Amino acid sequence: MKQLKQQMKREQGSMMGKTRLEAFSDGVLAIIITIMVLELKVPHDAGAAALLGLWPVFLSYVLSFVYVGIYWNNHHHMLHTVQHVSGAMLWANLHLLFWLSLIPFVTGWMGENHFAPLPTALYGVVLLMAAIAYFILQLIIIRAHGSESELKQALGRDWKGKISPVLYALAIGLAFVSQWLAGLIYAIVALMWLVPDRRIEKTLTNAH
Amino acid sequence: MKQLKQQMKREQGSMMGKTRLEAFSDGVLAIIITIMVLELKVPHDAGAAALLGLWPVFLSYVLSFVYVGIYWNNHHHMLHTVQHVSGAMLWANLHLLFWLSLIPFVTGWMGENHFAPLPTALYGVVLLMAAIAYFILQLIIIRAHGSESELKQALGRDWKGKISPVLYALAIGLAFVSQWLAGLIYAIVALMWLVPDRRIEKTLTNAH
Amino acid sequence: MKQLKQQMKREQGSMMGKTRLEAFSDGVLAIIITIMVLELKVPHDAGAAALLGLWPVFLSYVLSFVYVGIYWNNHHHMLHTVQHVSGAMLWANLHLLFWLSLIPFVTGWMGENHFAPLPTALYGVVLLMAAIAYFILQLIIIRAHGSESELKQALGRDWKGKISPVLYALAIGLAFVSQWLAGLIYAIVALMWLVPDRRIEKTLTNAH
Amino acid sequence: MKQLKQQMKREQGSMMGKTRLEAFSDGVLAIIITIMVLELKVPHDAGAAALLGLWPVFLSYVLSFVYVGIYWNNHHHMLHTVQHVSGAMLWANLHLLFWLSLIPFVTGWMGENHFAPLPTALYGVVLLMAAIAYFILQLIIIRAHGSESELKQALGRDWKGKISPVLYALAIGLAFVSQWLAGLIYAIVALMWLVPDRRIEKTLTNAH
Repeated sequence: MKQLKQQMKREQGSMMGKTRLEAFSDGVLAIIITIMVLELKVPHDAGAAALLGLWPVFLSYVLSFVYVGIYWNNHHHMLHTVQHVSGAMLWANLHLLFWLSLIPFVTGWMGENHFAPLPTALYGVVLLMAAIAYFILQLIIIRAHGSESELKQALGRDWKGKISPVLYALAIGLAFVSQWLAGLIYAIVALMWLVPDRRIEKTLTNAH
Repeated sequence: MKQLKQQMKREQGSMMGKTRLEAFSDGVLAIIITIMVLELKVPHDAGAAALLGLWPVFLSYVLSFVYVGIYWNNHHHMLHTVQHVSGAMLWANLHLLFWLSLIPFVTGWMGENHFAPLPTALYGVVLLMAAIAYFILQLIIIRAHGSESELKQALGRDWKGKISPVLYALAIGLAFVSQWLAGLIYAIVALMWLVPDRRIEKTLTNAH
Repeated sequence: MKQLKQQMKREQGSMMGKTRLEAFSDGVLAIIITIMVLELKVPHDAGAAALLGLWPVFLSYVLSFVYVGIYWNNHHHMLHTVQHVSGAMLWANLHLLFWLSLIPFVTGWMGENHFAPLPTALYGVVLLMAAIAYFILQLIIIRAHGSESELKQALGRDWKGKISPVLYALAIGLAFVSQWLAGLIYAIVALMWLVPDRRIEKTLTNAH
Repeated sequence: MKQLKQQMKREQGSMMGKTRLEAFSDGVLAIIITIMVLELKVPHDAGAAALLGLWPVFLSYVLSFVYVGIYWNNHHHMLHTVQHVSGAMLWANLHLLFWLSLIPFVTGWMGENHFAPLPTALYGVVLLMAAIAYFILQLIIIRAHGSESELKQALGRDWKGKISPVLYALAIGLAFVSQWLAGLIYAIVALMWLVPDRRIEKTLTNAH
């Protein structure tokens, strides 16, 4: 009986830490995803022209919504495998949130300037930095759990995680040649991740 | 004893997933409902005329507040019946949140233009898309739980869910004939849902 | 053993409902309290005059921060006594959040117009409506728990809850005579509530 | 069995209170950290000059992001040691959140005015007030848990907590001599805290 109580207490303790890390991340991601809509400025005119003029801002909103959704989704699965939260994880997580917090800014800049070269390239820079920050967080979680890390097994060779930064870097350069090609690459990477990441789900199902 | 511990762990596991889905949705819905108030721009003048001039914006704010409240309420009841969270559910949920995130924009556009035809019709389009997204999420949850789905039994014939999109479509068309008729339909649909959805509550009470 | 598991499941079930009600309310209150600071518009000038010119906006911010803090605090204690969440509670809670969501607007209007009569009176109207909404929510919770309601015992004669609306009504009228008198009343009511509500805390401590 | 159930209920009770305190704080901190990015106003021009002109706003954003991150991190560790939440803690916590809620304002003012003396000094004033508010909250938590306070043991001599206010005060005065020296001090204090606070983590690990 006493053992069970202690076991419960310990589990609740480490779960609390994880819960709060998730809660804070969810809060920040929820605000980022919702604040972006404020860049869709309400036109003073009620005509169709005013609405249609918003298409580049709307398009960049949809793209960023999907990206933040992907990050939330993957973050959700990744933290599912965490057993104990360390100080390094907290800061690696904040580092990731920092780059994601810049998405509303670059989304607005790219949308308002109809996908001009520099804003389109900067959009890729922020995506690239977020991908690197995500990679660092992943590494810290895997190391903290040793060789039996569920996450490591789930990731396998992690080709998506490896190819994405390469594609972002390519798009950053291409933005100055053809902004549409850069935009296409951003869309392709998003679609690539949209295909549900069955790897982690599968390993988790097998394990439990 | 060991069995109980495993049982507890499993339940906490799937509950964690659900908890986070709810937490993120609550976060986004809370921000949507609160951000809308920013469209009620503070007038520089302290007179009664400045205040009264805000009535269409205020009216559209009340309408949208009730709609987001209804979605939160129904979402709350629907997720109550979920046992395991799947990747498809996460994305169907994000899809619903996407359409709901556009509510502050269409609310502001409709209010600022005194319920002009096009903004009033677009308001209906967003409501219609959100209703479809909700329907898809509902379908995925029912399918995931098989024939014993609590939610399916609770919904019964789901006449509210079926008649709402028809009424939205009607209002979209009517907005170009009479914007007030369209607004009336939006208000009627909201009132229809405001009547508490005792179906799910009842089935849940019987089941437990 | 089986009984314990069922007991646990039932408690987690009703706790889930309550948790989500609290989480959503906390989310909305957290956003309201933080969004108000956006009315403190960053001056373009770096001089002391620009800063000092903000004093009425800052003063009204402090007042509203304290009010939202009081509502969060009391809401926290009130929900502590809830055992089962009903549909009526969800809506009464949303009704309360609606009036509280208007606080940033009236705070900004009152502050920007240096406590002019009409904005100062409207501030009181929103406080009055929020107090009424809180009273309704309280009534629904007490009724749902029958004669053994912890909350009812904790409230006692609830003189604070009864005198506050009277003082708000008084301040609304007085705003047109002397805006400073009205402001003073708002400050006094806030201070009256700031004194920690030991009633509920005490009853809870005795009960457990 | 009955004893275990009561134990569980009691623990869940006090945990609920703590959970909600954490949830509300996390919500406010998440909004503060994300709202700051709105001061990074999207330039209408797509050129490099428009982007580079934002560097002081960006720099002050990074500094404030790190500060809010530090507060979230330390708050997280501090609340981990709390066993029972009192009314005094709730208000001391709100007091801390009040000063932190002013960070987006002073960040924007400092950034937009290229670290002019007065805004740079005011930034320090808000940091100083937040540090004092944190100290008060810490004191209340330690007193509530008596001589066996985990937090007290974890803090030890708390030299970081004691030297920070002194450095802020120094920077406030120096801002009128050299704004860059003041900015340097803010950066040094931030770096000092970034080094993970292993004290609390260590004591907690030993205790459990």
